[in-house]
Formats: sequence, structure tokens, C-alpha cells
Amino acid sequence: MPGNTFGKILRLTTFGESHSECIGGVLDGLPSQIKIDNELLAHDMQRRRPGKSSFESPRKEADEVRFLSGICDNKTLGTPIGFIINNIDTKSKDYAALKDVYRPSHADYTYHKKYGIRDYRGGGRASARETAARVVGGALAKMFLKESKVRITAFISQIGPIALKQPYYQHCPSVEASPPLFCPNIKTSHEIEDYLKVVEKEGDTVGGTITCVVSCLPPGLGEPVFDKLQARLAYAMMSIPAAKGFAYGTGFEAASMKGSDHNDAFKVVKNKITTSTNFSGGIQGGISNGQDIYFDVAFKPVSSIKKRQVTIDVEGRQKVVSIKGRHDVCPVPRAVPIVEAMTALVIADNMLLQKRFL
Amino acid sequence: MPGNTFGKILRLTTFGESHSECIGGVLDGLPSQIKIDNELLAHDMQRRRPGKSSFESPRKEADEVRFLSGICDNKTLGTPIGFIINNIDTKSKDYAALKDVYRPSHADYTYHKKYGIRDYRGGGRASARETAARVVGGALAKMFLKESKVRITAFISQIGPIALKQPYYQHCPSVEASPPLFCPNIKTSHEIEDYLKVVEKEGDTVGGTITCVVSCLPPGLGEPVFDKLQARLAYAMMSIPAAKGFAYGTGFEAASMKGSDHNDAFKVVKNKITTSTNFSGGIQGGISNGQDIYFDVAFKPVSSIKKRQVTIDVEGRQKVVSIKGRHDVCPVPRAVPIVEAMTALVIADNMLLQKRFL
Amino acid sequence: MPGNTFGKILRLTTFGESHSECIGGVLDGLPSQIKIDNELLAHDMQRRRPGKSSFESPRKEADEVRFLSGICDNKTLGTPIGFIINNIDTKSKDYAALKDVYRPSHADYTYHKKYGIRDYRGGGRASARETAARVVGGALAKMFLKESKVRITAFISQIGPIALKQPYYQHCPSVEASPPLFCPNIKTSHEIEDYLKVVEKEGDTVGGTITCVVSCLPPGLGEPVFDKLQARLAYAMMSIPAAKGFAYGTGFEAASMKGSDHNDAFKVVKNKITTSTNFSGGIQGGISNGQDIYFDVAFKPVSSIKKRQVTIDVEGRQKVVSIKGRHDVCPVPRAVPIVEAMTALVIADNMLLQKRFL
Amino acid sequence: MPGNTFGKILRLTTFGESHSECIGGVLDGLPSQIKIDNELLAHDMQRRRPGKSSFESPRKEADEVRFLSGICDNKTLGTPIGFIINNIDTKSKDYAALKDVYRPSHADYTYHKKYGIRDYRGGGRASARETAARVVGGALAKMFLKESKVRITAFISQIGPIALKQPYYQHCPSVEASPPLFCPNIKTSHEIEDYLKVVEKEGDTVGGTITCVVSCLPPGLGEPVFDKLQARLAYAMMSIPAAKGFAYGTGFEAASMKGSDHNDAFKVVKNKITTSTNFSGGIQGGISNGQDIYFDVAFKPVSSIKKRQVTIDVEGRQKVVSIKGRHDVCPVPRAVPIVEAMTALVIADNMLLQKRFL
Repeated sequence: MPGNTFGKILRLTTFGESHSECIGGVLDGLPSQIKIDNELLAHDMQRRRPGKSSFESPRKEADEVRFLSGICDNKTLGTPIGFIINNIDTKSKDYAALKDVYRPSHADYTYHKKYGIRDYRGGGRASARETAARVVGGALAKMFLKESKVRITAFISQIGPIALKQPYYQHCPSVEASPPLFCPNIKTSHEIEDYLKVVEKEGDTVGGTITCVVSCLPPGLGEPVFDKLQARLAYAMMSIPAAKGFAYGTGFEAASMKGSDHNDAFKVVKNKITTSTNFSGGIQGGISNGQDIYFDVAFKPVSSIKKRQVTIDVEGRQKVVSIKGRHDVCPVPRAVPIVEAMTALVIADNMLLQKRFL
Repeated sequence: MPGNTFGKILRLTTFGESHSECIGGVLDGLPSQIKIDNELLAHDMQRRRPGKSSFESPRKEADEVRFLSGICDNKTLGTPIGFIINNIDTKSKDYAALKDVYRPSHADYTYHKKYGIRDYRGGGRASARETAARVVGGALAKMFLKESKVRITAFISQIGPIALKQPYYQHCPSVEASPPLFCPNIKTSHEIEDYLKVVEKEGDTVGGTITCVVSCLPPGLGEPVFDKLQARLAYAMMSIPAAKGFAYGTGFEAASMKGSDHNDAFKVVKNKITTSTNFSGGIQGGISNGQDIYFDVAFKPVSSIKKRQVTIDVEGRQKVVSIKGRHDVCPVPRAVPIVEAMTALVIADNMLLQKRFL
Repeated sequence: MPGNTFGKILRLTTFGESHSECIGGVLDGLPSQIKIDNELLAHDMQRRRPGKSSFESPRKEADEVRFLSGICDNKTLGTPIGFIINNIDTKSKDYAALKDVYRPSHADYTYHKKYGIRDYRGGGRASARETAARVVGGALAKMFLKESKVRITAFISQIGPIALKQPYYQHCPSVEASPPLFCPNIKTSHEIEDYLKVVEKEGDTVGGTITCVVSCLPPGLGEPVFDKLQARLAYAMMSIPAAKGFAYGTGFEAASMKGSDHNDAFKVVKNKITTSTNFSGGIQGGISNGQDIYFDVAFKPVSSIKKRQVTIDVEGRQKVVSIKGRHDVCPVPRAVPIVEAMTALVIADNMLLQKRFL
Repeated sequence: MPGNTFGKILRLTTFGESHSECIGGVLDGLPSQIKIDNELLAHDMQRRRPGKSSFESPRKEADEVRFLSGICDNKTLGTPIGFIINNIDTKSKDYAALKDVYRPSHADYTYHKKYGIRDYRGGGRASARETAARVVGGALAKMFLKESKVRITAFISQIGPIALKQPYYQHCPSVEASPPLFCPNIKTSHEIEDYLKVVEKEGDTVGGTITCVVSCLPPGLGEPVFDKLQARLAYAMMSIPAAKGFAYGTGFEAASMKGSDHNDAFKVVKNKITTSTNFSGGIQGGISNGQDIYFDVAFKPVSSIKKRQVTIDVEGRQKVVSIKGRHDVCPVPRAVPIVEAMTALVIADNMLLQKRFL
């Protein structure tokens, strides 16, 4: 009921504040006998970890995952998998000056109104540090999905004014070749790097979009009516800090399209049902049709900027702030594995839900 | 767990196929002693009802709501409110020819893969007829919200290439003056009408967007992490048939904005905390901040078009179809009260969730 | 979240007051392509129906079930099955005198304190009339279980001072031979009939116990820790009106037993693992072991008695009441199919939960 | 969905195996600003801890609780409270000989059938060690309940053939005076101690019952129909390892009572509505009536006995076992705080659920 658990059969509960002893989670509902793939986990954690480039928060966190239960001889037991990630490099003193200030576009004011109390250190529970636990849960879900050959790939499709132009499927193969930005077009990637350096120098931040593709998913996944596959994906994506929009298939462009252009004709190729086009984004009536699922997630610029801003404190007095904590210039690069993790949780949950009918 | 129930404390379960005896629902969790406002209900049902203009399906449905339980002396008892709406004008014969055909971009194929069986008549459970039950649930939620003065207003902001240009708050007051299109700008409304006539003549369909505004919401509503208010709203909106995208506040425009432009400064006006701008769309850290919540929902064109299309049947044989059922030219006008209903369910649910802290 | 839905994957939601237009329910999560067995349904409804003997409420209800959705060509579609049962013989006037009285051991006072309003006619939502919807849900669950050959049999094991003495498995085969009491021992059955006539004449009521047996269940069903199979069964049974106790296997007798007597030794018979004794009641560690599951449910006497009783009204004034509504002399005979229905819902839910692991 | 989470608004998720690094849990939904009472926690943990007497497992565990999140300045933040308790004294070698054996009346066989894999060391997830996490969750729930003056008291009412005779309310005040057995009658307590010594010498074990009383609960708590207060309590109690039966108020004795004897007359005393008797056990129609709630839970003897037993191994071969692990002679003394903890979780959850109506 409270908002710290995600999923129906495969359920991830996370806990932890930015500066508490650790953050962690419990993943319940993963089938037994799934092999733990430590490389996969390390790869995903590494991509989310801060401090990999000058555009990222310099907070130093090894982000080592300690599994506490649910695993025996490197295989899942079917029982809940508890895990923690220590918070090492917490500089709570940095935040003492902000204790009583409502930072613009942060969760300070709203948490205060909701709970009457808040952990101001590093943003408390509202900090994106919580997403490390999501990446662990998502990596475990991916280990389960590997058995079905489902592939999930996210990449940067826009930062500030610089955007990829080609359709999504031209980018998929080359994504992994492009750290630190995970933008599959090398030329665009360089443009973005140059742009981020300028924004950083200004003491400012910028937004962007991530595109995610799910391939090799069997048809028939998803639930009708309220739990349509796109509804669960939208729910998952919009729960990521700083997300402002979700669109799948043709997305907002569909608003100006005609039915005769938008419809995807079915055809049979090599004895397999497929569609001539994929404007539907792989989902019809809320249920997968076997084609690629693809969607975009828009992110706002990071709210913590070094530039001076006018705001108020808890007593309503005007204050001028310049936020000196350690923050990303753009939320998007580190959000790529988070988008993948939340997608993996949704897809794995739906595969487990569907099994009971087959 | 299956997808036919929405909400946490305030829970709407719907049932019914397009051509079953009736559709209906059960709303559980509404507090006791709420006064039933029949005018409010009739107004919402009327807006969703087909056959009000030539752009809408000519299916004739009175859409009268019959409450079966949970109400006594025109007040809620606190017990579940069961209700049904008869399906009167079902022409199942229209669909006999399509029994074995997978219509392009419909749910025929995907339901078949999921269930191994499907009710082909009128689209079965995948039909948007189901949304009538959502409007009933939403109207009941609105009756509860009236006590707190929360207002929810949705309107058409785009159809095909024709879109409103001004910011949302300039439109709110005039929405109700503009049936049948619920587009608040009269000039735009006429342009849209002309455009829809052309599309209709072509035997084609078109998409559009709806904007929704929630005003007078107290700060502090929403849950952290996975159940952020925007995540629940996105979930609700993307569950509406034909929805392709959701964006709140600055939405996808946030991707190209800088933090210094996007941040909303807090200030105190008449002893009340407010913000200078509202790029955040009324939500920070997943929790309401007391400003207007506003968001856009994009809809694809209706998949049922009269134009000839090539597709396949259940045996994989190529078929040419021209869909003669009764369908809307554009899904957006009738979706306006559905967007409001789903919004009301989300907001009321969050108000009930929050009560336990206060 | 509110209390009108039961189950995790197979979910029954019920609605309706004793004197509302009808009672009904929605069963969601039943797999598609289950054949509807109208005889099975009629048999269960008939056993719960009032008016079959002088010991039962003379309220005349055909209790005909009208399915509204989710079924096509006599098979389930996998979509929610809505259904209603009309309330025909409602004599609300009988209750007018009791409008402001808190009847002893009824839910009048507690509903008033919870909701601030109550439907006093026939007990409103607190009436056992609601259980008719449970029997429908349970019958649908049984249709699913038939495919796996699971059998569920309940019978009367005690009424007042008269009780069956032999172990449960000696009674199973003969249960159906013994209406109206569903007590498998004919001699005991006659003794009970004679006893009930005496109690009836006194204007009094009496309690009893029901024993239920689940046979042919595969091992491996049930969830660890909080959702042990016995915990879900206890939850289900104790939700039945008038239930006061639940005990499975050795039940309360286990309190005075020693481990060396209570343990069930495993052995192999005809290549199948079985146990020498079955004190465990078919469940170990919350999970079925393939042996019969058996349990007892105790019921208190019906609270509505014709004898004069002293109580108070809503103003706290002393009142003398003699309850003239139509009531059973003993809750147990009509509760037999309700116990079976709730058991079927629990078992079917667990089978569907388990499928995802296999 | 899987069985490792309990509660609706106040939700406890536990994780951990008997011999994993630690066990732990996450309590979500506790209101903010509750003061942490470390003495209360220590007292409850101490009562459950092994090794306090010769009748208890000699496993040495400090059972120190480490809170990881959700608490700041000794007050709850309203965010999830993660916690762990280390497993220190694990002697996994003791279990190596039992790796392939299905111990009689243990969960070895059933876990194997469910998961296809099991952690045999110390019983894995099926071990009662998991209940330490429940006691932590329950202690936190008690801290919330203290604000409303609700009191929860459990005590031993029977072990083997020795039972308390007087009604429950004569025992409540003296419970705390009687460690290690928490049986309020000193004479009975001594008899039980003597009896346990005999059983211990025999290498055997024995069952018992616990009685629990909830006082000072306001009327109006509980949900109708499926989530009656007694149904949630039964669910909670029957999820405790070794529990075999649950009965509230008159329990199984109600089966032989008449309505005229069983009904509780309402009366007004000092301007407060109360009842002359309390056969109802404080609940009517599933909702609290303001009187004491009291119930009994029966426990079977511990399955691990030192006596020789015949059983089989995973290959179906006959084996003779004598279980040398460290085990209690009777499950009941250490289960007293577990019964209280689960009761506290149910009651607190219902208080939070009810707030939305008030």
C-alpha cells in the first residue's frame, strides 16, 4: 500500500535514505534455481554508479551489493532475496546549511507537508540514491529473462537540444560501444559531451530522453483493462526520479496521424505472424504482439544547480541558495540502467503472471 | 492481480464485454455518508455516450447506470457499490465476418495468444465500451472530492494537426461551454469540426491529445518512490484504450531545458507558500505541492477504419477487410470524461491514503 | 484493501446488502476455457438456499445466478465473471421496529461505530445473505479444480451436544447421501434433527462444527511464512459469519501431544511418497504434502432468537426485544457449501500461484 | 503475492534463512514521528531469544536488531524501516547428515516439491528463526499503538496436559511476573516446569496453547466480509510455525451453546456502551465492539526430537534419524512474544485503515 514496493508476483521493496547506513531491498517472487550472473549485476551497477565522468556527481560509492538471503550455491532458492548497498561517502555536513531551506523544485517542501518530518541529509528518501536498489532488482529480473532470450536495451536519445534522428532499431546493436554516454551514435555522443561541458561550466544542468527497446518477447503478455503492458511500463518509468513523460510506439506523434497510416498490417513471414510496420510499439490492447516494444522517457534537468537561486525557508523567509552538494549535470546518463531495470521488473512480472494460463 | 481492478484503498473493479448482457463494476473503499449527485453522474455519462455527433459511433446506448448496492437513502454506506449499465444496441452480426480475422492494430491477435479464446463480438473485453464503468467509478470519486473542493477539468488540446497554443490555465474556465468537442477555444473547436468532417468522408480516423488540470489539491499527497503521484497518473492514463503517451508539467520539453530555467522558486503570497512558476506541474518528489497538476495524454487514431486494409486470418491466410462496425472518427472527444474519471480515482485514492498520517 | 475482495490471483469481490436489489460478485483471474458446469453450481446453491427445512429461515429465494460477463459459449473467457442473485423476498418492514435497536451479539452497534450509518434492513451488508455470492465464486473455482481431480468435501461433525465420533476419513464417501443435514452418519443425523426440533420450539438457536476434507491435492502448494496454506484456510474460514474457531490436522489436541506421537513418518508405497499417519493434516511448513487436508470450523449459535432479550437502543435506552425476522435455528447446515466454496477459492488460488514455478 | 509480506497498509516483509548471513525485514507504512522505544524492543526480543532455559534451543544468538533506515533522531520518518539481525551461532555441519533426508513432519519434503531446491541448513526459510523479524515488526507496531493506549498481552495457558482453568481476565495482570514461562499462575508454572524436565529427559517434545488479550481497543475497527478482524487474526496466528488451531471468544465451545446463553446483552455503564458478558470475544460482525478481544492459539509439539525415528531420504530409501540439532522442548514459551507481535501488526493495520473514515 505505501509506495515502496513494485510489482505483482515479482515484488521489489526498497528501503534506505541517501545518508542512512545503507540502502537496500528485498526481491520476492523470483523463481527458484535461477543462476546468479555476477557480471551482469556488476555491469549494471557500474553504469549507474556516480563519479565515472566529470558530468556525474563525484560522490564516491563502490556500490558493492551484499546479498543477505535467498541464494544458495549461487542459485536462487525461490525465497526472498534481501540485499544491501552501503552508503560510504556521505557528507551530511554539506547539507546542514540547507536543513531549513526548501530548495526550488526539490522534494523538501512536499515531504515536510506529507510527513511533518524529513531527513534533510542528501535528500533523504527522495534522493536518487534509492535507484541503486532498483538496479539490483532489475539485474535479478534480467537473469530470469535470459532464459527466455528476452533482450532489454536502453540508450540516450536526446540531451538538451541534441537528439538522435534515426529510428530506434538502427541504434540497438551499437549501444554498448559508447560509454560513458550510452548514446549509440558516436558523432552525437561527442556533440553531447561538448555540450555537457559548457552546461557544467555555467553551473547549470540539463534534461534529456532515454529510449528503451524490448526484443524477442513472446506475444500474449500483459493484462487487459487497467494493467495493460504500456500502463505498467508508464507506471514504472514515471516512478524514476526526474521523469516527466512517457511515450511508446508512435507516442505523441500519433495525435496527428490518421488510422490508415498508423495501423500495422499483419502478415506471415516464414510461418510466423508479424506486422509490416510497428507503429503500435509491440503492444495491442495492452498485450504484447511479439514485435519490439519501444518507448521514450523524458527527464527534466537536475534541480540542484550551483547558480544562485531565490527561495524560502521553513518559516517562509526569503533565502538565496547556491547548491554545493554533489550532483549530476544531467540525470540521463546514469538513468539508462535504471530504465532497463524497471523495464526488466515489469516484463518478468508479466511473464510470471502469464505462466499460469499456459 | 489480474488487470481488472484499479486503486489501492479506493478500488474499482470492472467487468463486461462489449456485447455481453451488460457491463458494470464494483467500487469499494468509498467512505460512508457521501451524498450521491445524480446530475454529476449524468453529465459525465452523457459526455462519454456514443451518438452525440456524426463523428461518434452511432451505437445507441442510453447508458443508464443502475446501482445495485452500497447506497441507502441516497448516501453511501461505506460498503461496496455495485452497478451495471446494460448493453442494448449490440449488433453482433456485424462482427460475424470478422470472427476469424485479425484486424490491423486491434487486440484480436493478442487476446487470442493470451487466452486461446476470445469474444470477437464488438471487440469483447478489449472494447472501449468498458470505459463506461470507469466513468461511473470516477463520478463517485468526484462526489467524495467535492467535499475537499478539488476540481478536475479535462479538455481537447489537439486533434490531428490542429492544436491549442496557449498555456493550459487560460482554457480551464471555458471548457464546459464547448460541446460537443470540449475544446475550450471556440475558433479551434470549429476548425477541428471541419477537419473531422473531412476525415470522416475519407473513411479514415485521426488521433489527438487531451489536457487535464487538477486544481485546489492540498500539498502532501502522493507516496514516495514507486507510487509517486505522476506514476499513478501515468498508470491510470496509459490504461485508457488508444493512449500512447503521458507527460506532466513541462513533459517532453523538459528534455531540452536547463535547470536554471526549469526550477520553480518558492515564495510566500498572503501567508501561503506558492511557487513563481509551475514547470513542475504541481508535483515534486512524487508528492503534490499545492499548485495545479496538469498533464497531457496522447491518443492514436481509432484502428477501425472503413478504408480497405490487407491483413490475415487465424489460419494465416491473407484477407482484405473494410471495417463496417460503428466507430468513432477520433477517440479523443469521448475520452475527455474518461481522463477525468481516472484522474478522480487516483486523486481520491491518494487523499484516503494520506488520511492515516494526519 | 477494504474487506470485500478475497484471493491473490483468483480474486472474488462481492457486493450487496440483505435487502438491496440484489447481491453479486466479480470473480477475476479464473483461467480461460474452463467449462461452466451448471449442475455443480445448482447443487451448491441449493444446499445454501434457505427454506429447505423447518430449521432454516423461511425466506423464499430462488437464488438463481445470472452471469453477466466473462463467459461465451459456456466457457470462461479469462476475463472477469460478473454475476448477480436477486433479493426477492425482502420484508424490510419486519426490521422497522429494530431500526434503532442494537440487537445483542449482532453487528448493529459495530457497523454504526465504524460507518456512522447502517442499512438496518435484514442486517444490511453484515447479513449472511452475502455468502450466496461466495458459493457462486466457489463453484467456479471447483470447475477449475475438477481438471486436476482435487476433491473438496464438507460435512456437519457436531451440532449442540451431538457429535460424530469416528475419524474424518470414515465419513467422506457418504456425505452426499444425507440431506438436509449433510451429516454422514444417518443415526447421528436423526439425533440432530430431533434435537433441532426441540431448540426450535424453545425459540432458541444452537451452534455446531463443520469438518472439511481436501483430497487428491498435489504436494508443493502453499507459500512460506505468512501465506502458509493453513493460514489462508484459517483466514477464509474465519471470514464466514458466525465462525468462532479453526483447527486443522490434530488441531487443539496437538497441545497435549508429544512429538514422538505426533510426527508423521514418511514412507514409499507403490513408488509414491506418503506418510504412515496424517496428524499434520496434509500440510508441513505451510505447504501441501499430498495427503488429505482436513480441518474443523466451529460456529456459534445464530444471534437472532425469538426469546425475549434485554438490550439498548442507539440513545442508550434499555429495550426488550424478541427477534421475529426469518432466521435459522442453527447456522451450520447451510454453511456446509460455504465452507466448501471458501476452501475451493483458497486451493484454486494456490494452484494458480504455483503454476508459475513449474 | 508471494507469502513473505503481511499487512495491508502497515506491511512487514521478512527475508532470511536460518543459516544465511542474517535475517531481516522491512516495515513499511508506519506513520512518521513515532518515538522508538528501545526498551520495549529489547524486552520482546529477549523473550523470543533462544537459550534462556534448558527447555530452549541452546543456539546462542544475541539477536541484536540493527536498524538500517527509516529512523532519524530516534523517530520514524514515515519511510520504510529496514532492519537485520545477524545469524551468529550457525552450526551448518550439524545438518550435513540430514541433507538428503526428509525429516518426519518437517518442511523438507514439501519445500523440495515446491521449489525443486532447498537450503537444508537449519531448516532454511522454514526455520522459526524467521520469527525474530516478526518480533521486530510487532515491537514497532506496539510503539504506534501505545499512543492509543491499546494493550496486548499473551501468556501460556496450556502445555501438554497442564492447563490454566480460570477465565482469561483473571490472568492478565500477573503475566509479566512469571518468566521464563510467562504462565501467570505461579503454581501452574511450576507444574509445567517439572513436566518439561521429564519430557526433555525422554528426548521428546510437547505442544501447548497461548492465550492473547487485546484491551482498550476502540469500537469500529475491522473490515466487513472477508477481512473481519477475527479472520485477519486467525490468518496471522496460523502463519506462526507449529500453530494448529485458532479460536476467539467462546471458540469451539460455542458449538454446543445455545443463542440465549451466548448472546451478549448491551448495557450502558457510566455513559459508556458495554456488554454484560463477553462471549463474542470483543468482535461482532467482524468489527471490534470495545470489549476485550481474546483468543487461543494451539501449537503442536516441536517436530525435531532426539528419539529415533524411521523416515526416507530424497531417493525414497528408508532411513533412521535421531535429530541432534538444537531445538526447543516445547514451541510455546518462545512463541508468546510472536503471538503478541502478529497481533500488534493486525491491530495497528486496522487502526490505520480505519483512519480514512474518521
